[in-house]
Amino acid sequence: MKIIVLTFLISLGLVLVFGQQASAQADPLSSWNDGAAKASIVRFVAKVTKQGGPDYVLPADRIAVFDNDGTLWIEQPLYVQGLFVLDRVRALAPRHPEWKDTQPFKAVLENDMETLAASGPKGIAELVMATHAGMTTEEFGRIVKDWLATARHPKLGRPYTDLVYQPMLELLAFLRANGFKTYIVSGGGVEFVRTFSEDRYGIPPEQVIGSSNLTRFEIRDGKPVLVREPEIDFIDDHEGKPVGINKFIGRRPIAAFGNSDGDLQMLQWVAAGEGPRFGLLVHHDDSVREYDYDRSSHVGRLDRALDEAPRRGWTVVSMKRDWKTVFPGYSREQEKQR
Amino acid sequence: MKIIVLTFLISLGLVLVFGQQASAQADPLSSWNDGAAKASIVRFVAKVTKQGGPDYVLPADRIAVFDNDGTLWIEQPLYVQGLFVLDRVRALAPRHPEWKDTQPFKAVLENDMETLAASGPKGIAELVMATHAGMTTEEFGRIVKDWLATARHPKLGRPYTDLVYQPMLELLAFLRANGFKTYIVSGGGVEFVRTFSEDRYGIPPEQVIGSSNLTRFEIRDGKPVLVREPEIDFIDDHEGKPVGINKFIGRRPIAAFGNSDGDLQMLQWVAAGEGPRFGLLVHHDDSVREYDYDRSSHVGRLDRALDEAPRRGWTVVSMKRDWKTVFPGYSREQEKQR
Repeated sequence: MKIIVLTFLISLGLVLVFGQQASAQADPLSSWNDGAAKASIVRFVAKVTKQGGPDYVLPADRIAVFDNDGTLWIEQPLYVQGLFVLDRVRALAPRHPEWKDTQPFKAVLENDMETLAASGPKGIAELVMATHAGMTTEEFGRIVKDWLATARHPKLGRPYTDLVYQPMLELLAFLRANGFKTYIVSGGGVEFVRTFSEDRYGIPPEQVIGSSNLTRFEIRDGKPVLVREPEIDFIDDHEGKPVGINKFIGRRPIAAFGNSDGDLQMLQWVAAGEGPRFGLLVHHDDSVREYDYDRSSHVGRLDRALDEAPRRGWTVVSMKRDWKTVFPGYSREQEKQR
Repeated sequence: MKIIVLTFLISLGLVLVFGQQASAQADPLSSWNDGAAKASIVRFVAKVTKQGGPDYVLPADRIAVFDNDGTLWIEQPLYVQGLFVLDRVRALAPRHPEWKDTQPFKAVLENDMETLAASGPKGIAELVMATHAGMTTEEFGRIVKDWLATARHPKLGRPYTDLVYQPMLELLAFLRANGFKTYIVSGGGVEFVRTFSEDRYGIPPEQVIGSSNLTRFEIRDGKPVLVREPEIDFIDDHEGKPVGINKFIGRRPIAAFGNSDGDLQMLQWVAAGEGPRFGLLVHHDDSVREYDYDRSSHVGRLDRALDEAPRRGWTVVSMKRDWKTVFPGYSREQEKQR
């Protein structure tokens, strides 16, 4: 019996030893081109995980927070959740004949984006509430999943969940392999992002922070349910991001990843803690493989944070220069030919 | 070199093998008397962890939620955070000379509990806001920690962090050893509970859900801080508990532990999910070692949930009968003699 145990442990041991050698040779960030951005990531992870080193951080404190739209997946020509809202208005229109004559619904149904934009935040809020409230949390999750399964990006023609950034998937995995706990801190709806975060990013629902509607507990047909109310509970954007991080996590992360001014306060909050800190901005400068936008963009505007980055020592990633591939499943050549 | 690695793995292997045998013999719930309550816990854990069994639950879905006051630590003669409020009013009084003539502060300073009680929820809210707002989140954490280090229970004379329930500490550890993720879902303030949850319960801050004040992000002397505002953000009690669980965790736990009607909706919510479910109520019926209260208590009232327990198959723990010891570091004899 003891012999069997020993034999098993030996073979397991050898697998482990060889496995580690193999993984030490493979590059965990193989979709990143060599350069300052990649080097800064590798250097930071090396120093906080070096036991006995001056910058060593205990695993429990290795918390990394990631914005979602524009940082982990595509956000142009509009936030994916925005495209979901428009599709839902179209899908629900038969049940709401009055929408044909009511703004901003009329504008959506007539594809009149100018009038829609003119309806402003109040108009947008009306559309969001008409499509995000009145159902249970479980019903909402199913609606989102069904939509994600069939919707296609207007320019790239692929499902949105294919339009996550391969280099960022590798970065998430690399951090987790080094004892980090990875969180999403999204301006988008928490229950929207949770429908795909585990599958796509390996981030479980309890590690997703986001904006939310109020929900109400009630007993329906003898069964307790949570109903989504047409009222904002929390906006997890700009100043809301550090607030959300403190509310949900209760300790300060040591690394933050974003791509827009909506992530600025999160990066500031993370950078202001004691000990080693890491901040990174994805700069969308690749009009061929994705999009090229920053200071003047309505969606994902990157202006103040881009100015602050060099002063703070934050890494700015050039999508064009630093990423070998952008999306999973396409080589650089394929991406260029598209 | 390879020989050294093998030798090391073999010795490690043997340690593991013997270690597992030893822990299989020790009772992980040694402070629980044998009986229906203990048996129900052990049975539930066995069935959800039995791979290939009909009730097997994937580790990621093994989420257990625990109320804090009265479930994990003492809540009589008043919630510990209530006693903190009273002490803070006394400590801050020199800076607020007007409190001597202003209710409900006057009542606190004169130990006039009758007038204090008569001030009702509005009065209590005033006291809470005067003691829980106006400082940064980090300052508040320090204030709570300093208080917990020196305050003593009025009857038992021990620090509150000693008045956690030993059988529940064992239960938390037992669940975690079986792949469960343990959460606190408290009606108390999330930033209050987080100051001791990791130390006392092994529950990290990101696994504590609770009531909260609004916080505001601002830059003070060039440094970003979060300031606690004198306004309620969320009440994590009664209907708020399932709402909080959905908001923070985003999936339904499979086990819930409480002790009062404030936990009823949480237990209902957890019980209503698919697959194996577990609900437990701690019944405080031990006037010798702790307190004896249920249906008519102002603090931790247990009435509707106690009626519902047998119908739902929830385990009701008799503190008197089911717990060998109540608090860590005291034997049953010592506890009786106190």
